[in-house]
Amino acid sequence: MKLLRVGPAGAERPALLDAAGTLRDLSGLVPDVDGALLADDAALDRVRAAAASGELPALDSAGLRVGPPVGRIGKVVCIGLNYHDHAAETGAEPPAEPVVFFKAADTVVGPHDTVLVPRRSTKTDWEVELAVVIGRTARYVESHEAALACVGGYAVAHDVSEREFQIERGGTWDKGKNCETFNPLGPWLVTPDEVPDPQALGLKLWVNGELKQDGSTADQIFSVAEVVRYVSQFMTLYPGDVINTGTPAGVAMGQPEPKPYLRAGDVVELEIGGLGRQRQELKPA
Amino acid sequence: MKLLRVGPAGAERPALLDAAGTLRDLSGLVPDVDGALLADDAALDRVRAAAASGELPALDSAGLRVGPPVGRIGKVVCIGLNYHDHAAETGAEPPAEPVVFFKAADTVVGPHDTVLVPRRSTKTDWEVELAVVIGRTARYVESHEAALACVGGYAVAHDVSEREFQIERGGTWDKGKNCETFNPLGPWLVTPDEVPDPQALGLKLWVNGELKQDGSTADQIFSVAEVVRYVSQFMTLYPGDVINTGTPAGVAMGQPEPKPYLRAGDVVELEIGGLGRQRQELKPA
Repeated sequence: MKLLRVGPAGAERPALLDAAGTLRDLSGLVPDVDGALLADDAALDRVRAAAASGELPALDSAGLRVGPPVGRIGKVVCIGLNYHDHAAETGAEPPAEPVVFFKAADTVVGPHDTVLVPRRSTKTDWEVELAVVIGRTARYVESHEAALACVGGYAVAHDVSEREFQIERGGTWDKGKNCETFNPLGPWLVTPDEVPDPQALGLKLWVNGELKQDGSTADQIFSVAEVVRYVSQFMTLYPGDVINTGTPAGVAMGQPEPKPYLRAGDVVELEIGGLGRQRQELKPA
Repeated sequence: MKLLRVGPAGAERPALLDAAGTLRDLSGLVPDVDGALLADDAALDRVRAAAASGELPALDSAGLRVGPPVGRIGKVVCIGLNYHDHAAETGAEPPAEPVVFFKAADTVVGPHDTVLVPRRSTKTDWEVELAVVIGRTARYVESHEAALACVGGYAVAHDVSEREFQIERGGTWDKGKNCETFNPLGPWLVTPDEVPDPQALGLKLWVNGELKQDGSTADQIFSVAEVVRYVSQFMTLYPGDVINTGTPAGVAMGQPEPKPYLRAGDVVELEIGGLGRQRQELKPA
């Protein structure tokens, strides 16, 4: 299933994109698309049955804002340097174990919402990423099979990053990862039954129409299953938490001087095969 | 005012500790102690008037669990190496600007709840900290006066830290800061009118009755006002967000070998002048 949330920011309603591409209203069936829904097999079965029956009311998508496909996100755990080609372009050795940092849930916006270039930013950069949305609590998970059973869905994430704040201002990377609007998510949450192999997804990102990133999750150093297993040794992952699993090569930081960092007026588009497409215009904060 | 939340985890009710030390029920007056309340001057005035009138029902505190004094916390921003004596004991230079890292809101527990020593942990450490709870949105705040106007209250925080996970496992500090139960908070949220100078608070921490930390916020490298102003340049702080403002000297990591890291069975007590006292027993995760 492709689940999503549509409507004004903070007042989104749950919806479903059916097999024919029609947007269907889920608000008569479930209160939201969130961790509670993803953890509730019976509710997901009801949604699936309603979708199959064709009885769900169609929504007019014209002019309708698409919000992030998960409400009430608890935390956003991010994995750094998780693609061989991206580690190489940044001059870093491939990490011996996953690099973990955080984005606050309040950085999450819809897939087509405006992204704000922070004040005094000179190095705002792009990163297309596969986001994993947790559907079952993951705590000291021991196997890859058990780890994948904790995944409630997949989505496109844009891990917007300010490199000066991240790297040149002391402390951890978090300082350059948590500016407002820095995590567009969606358009859809795609349930795992429609993503048979999360390690075979193509990721693409364009800036002003020019292809900048063109990678595959096959190049991930640590697979989705290993990332979930590993992270669950250090913290408990709850339904509705999100993991951004890293970005492939092609970010501005990895390019020759003058590096083409983002400016107000730029347009970024992102796509992951089967998970949909995002488009953001950049404006000044 | 001293605001708090009492009752079972996840089902706390709002309460107030009055000037005579009597616990008063606020649940007839406000739905919770959270960012929405702290941002609402009229609601705070109603609470203040009700407390003064003596009309609030008394609560029997016997056997009543105290929860974290803020509900629906958005994010927990932490400042590292923010005391001269603590930076010195870790062998670090005093940072040129604040070091920022994150704890997830799901690590927050009540002030007397059990703290779990993570599996495979050998270096679980203590840190008493002054927590600042945001009451007004702070975004690109320019002055210290404006920064302090965004503070909704102060509380005691225990920034429990696993040093091997934090420092020896690659990536950022977040890996050692986000284990479950790693952020006891409370007992009270004390409103700023009762904390005339946040830079004159004594902080103490004991392990099994032995005094380990005995500092003062006067030793902070970056003041509360500067921390709020600084952080608001990199991310937006919302009502109900928490900032842990760093710990003074005396942590296990700073002591001679064999360093006295925490084990199951240990008891940690923490106190900040005017903000109350915490007590946690450690158990295995």
